Amino acid sequence: MLEGARPGLNPWRKPLPAASQQSFPIKKAVVIGGGVIGASWAALFLANGLNVVISDPDPEIEAKATSIIMDAAPALKALGYGVDDITANLEFESDNARAVIGADIVQECGPENLAIKKAMWNVIEAMAPAHALLCSSSSTIPASVQSAHMTMPSRLIVGHPFNPPHLMPLVEVVPAPGTDPEIVGRALAFYQGIGKVALEISKEVPGFVANRLQAAFLQEAFSLVEQGVVRIDQLDDIVTNSLGIRWATSGPFLSAHLGGGAGGLDHFLKHFGPTMEAAWQHLGKPELNEGTLDLFSSQLARSYGLTSISALAERRDAKEIAVMNGLKGFDHA
Amino acid sequence: MLEGARPGLNPWRKPLPAASQQSFPIKKAVVIGGGVIGASWAALFLANGLNVVISDPDPEIEAKATSIIMDAAPALKALGYGVDDITANLEFESDNARAVIGADIVQECGPENLAIKKAMWNVIEAMAPAHALLCSSSSTIPASVQSAHMTMPSRLIVGHPFNPPHLMPLVEVVPAPGTDPEIVGRALAFYQGIGKVALEISKEVPGFVANRLQAAFLQEAFSLVEQGVVRIDQLDDIVTNSLGIRWATSGPFLSAHLGGGAGGLDHFLKHFGPTMEAAWQHLGKPELNEGTLDLFSSQLARSYGLTSISALAERRDAKEIAVMNGLKGFDHA
Repeated sequence: MLEGARPGLNPWRKPLPAASQQSFPIKKAVVIGGGVIGASWAALFLANGLNVVISDPDPEIEAKATSIIMDAAPALKALGYGVDDITANLEFESDNARAVIGADIVQECGPENLAIKKAMWNVIEAMAPAHALLCSSSSTIPASVQSAHMTMPSRLIVGHPFNPPHLMPLVEVVPAPGTDPEIVGRALAFYQGIGKVALEISKEVPGFVANRLQAAFLQEAFSLVEQGVVRIDQLDDIVTNSLGIRWATSGPFLSAHLGGGAGGLDHFLKHFGPTMEAAWQHLGKPELNEGTLDLFSSQLARSYGLTSISALAERRDAKEIAVMNGLKGFDHA
Repeated sequence: MLEGARPGLNPWRKPLPAASQQSFPIKKAVVIGGGVIGASWAALFLANGLNVVISDPDPEIEAKATSIIMDAAPALKALGYGVDDITANLEFESDNARAVIGADIVQECGPENLAIKKAMWNVIEAMAPAHALLCSSSSTIPASVQSAHMTMPSRLIVGHPFNPPHLMPLVEVVPAPGTDPEIVGRALAFYQGIGKVALEISKEVPGFVANRLQAAFLQEAFSLVEQGVVRIDQLDDIVTNSLGIRWATSGPFLSAHLGGGAGGLDHFLKHFGPTMEAAWQHLGKPELNEGTLDLFSSQLARSYGLTSISALAERRDAKEIAVMNGLKGFDHA
């Protein structure tokens, strides 16, 4: 648990050995870019007792980010974090160079634009303390590309959250080939220390892991609706009442292991492998053209159009919290 | 709710209008094949107050199926079904022809072998009452193929459960092109009446919907491990801590709608569509050869090998129940 953390924190992971934190206790977190992702990170950091600075050039950032943080507070509270007076330790500093002075971690959430990110990191690297963790939230630009012009490119790492960061446990920690392993370890320890499930990705493949799996899944989902096999509301109901429940509790490999009966994964792959390889040959190849977009849009309107997006999102968040809290009694190791 | 159903049933769906059940109240269910799937269906039917006959040529079927049913009882109880004396209304009859006399529903769970299924349906069609629902649990042989030699092929329908049927809500109801729509409606009403989420699949595509989505997902999962991007335990943890939580609560289309912010699905597809189409081009194409099977097997052993399959399965079931019960307060409509 982080130094200064409040009681009731870290609902997802047992506290790490204190030793892993001792050399660089993390007290000040700087969030670069206070949009939806950045403000959500800020809310999580604040709920963990950190001092947070949001650095964003938007003159209205204080009102916008504060609003997102206040909206995130009930979810954090429901997950077991302390959120009384959540913005007490929040500051704003539009200038990145000034913001990162004294930072223990910088979580970059700027635009997905390489030139902008490179320029940001030059400033940040020059001004942040040598011990500061430098993490990008980018989902598409790997650390090796962002860090190309840094003095010490081995410092930069991707800490890619699953949206929204304050709610979803996953953080994909993606080092570049040259990233210092000690930095990887400290990044994993930091994210785990604030209650996340942080996992190291060994290679910088485009989209990392969760988004690639999602893309594969959506490709077939789009194809099935495009072909008229099911409507989108039916496909959604199919997923929430089968694969979703399974994958909230056991990943695909453990599920296959248990699907193999007494013979486990080996039996599963021998028994179902050929069927699956055949299935891969006839998976769909949908096209996102005007026709499919119209089809999805009209089915979406019929399925969910009577409820506002904000009400649907609130309901989704409440359900996600119910799932996470329902699983809290189990050991996540 | 079914006539004769016990209190506390149907935790998933509100009772259907009584009218949908009136013409053919379902009291006797015959399960053809008492293996893992058949016995699980039997447990669910019994927990719904039905009289159940299991028809299976195995001379030891009574002991085997009873054991599976007794094992299923605690899960059914945890989901809110009444399971006291669950086998009180269970009988065994090895001869299919005798078993289906007086049946209101026949749930076929025999071997995935077309010749065997065709022969079974000839017997069943001749002996079951004209009003009986004739449903196959098949995951691979569509109704149009199984029913080719029946006198009234329009009677047969696939009612494909997500394994195990007593636990997972989904039933995919897959009519053949010529299936009587009234039969489709009655099958949906029956499964919904016993607490399932039954959805009609409009076309007989191989693997129906859930298994196709799963195949697409596993293809990329296998590829990522084959490439060394992550280990299988990491991939499992990534899924359970991100996509699984999301898809247990909101299907992929609703998730995309909410991922589009105020612009909803239309904005999501315009903004992320091109990135996704590009991602589809570089999804993996793993091969299930000796090398990959060895890799998966050794990583599996290191990840989960210290725990018995039965203990892992028990834990999975308990977690799935926790997820389902955690979501019970929400409207599933």
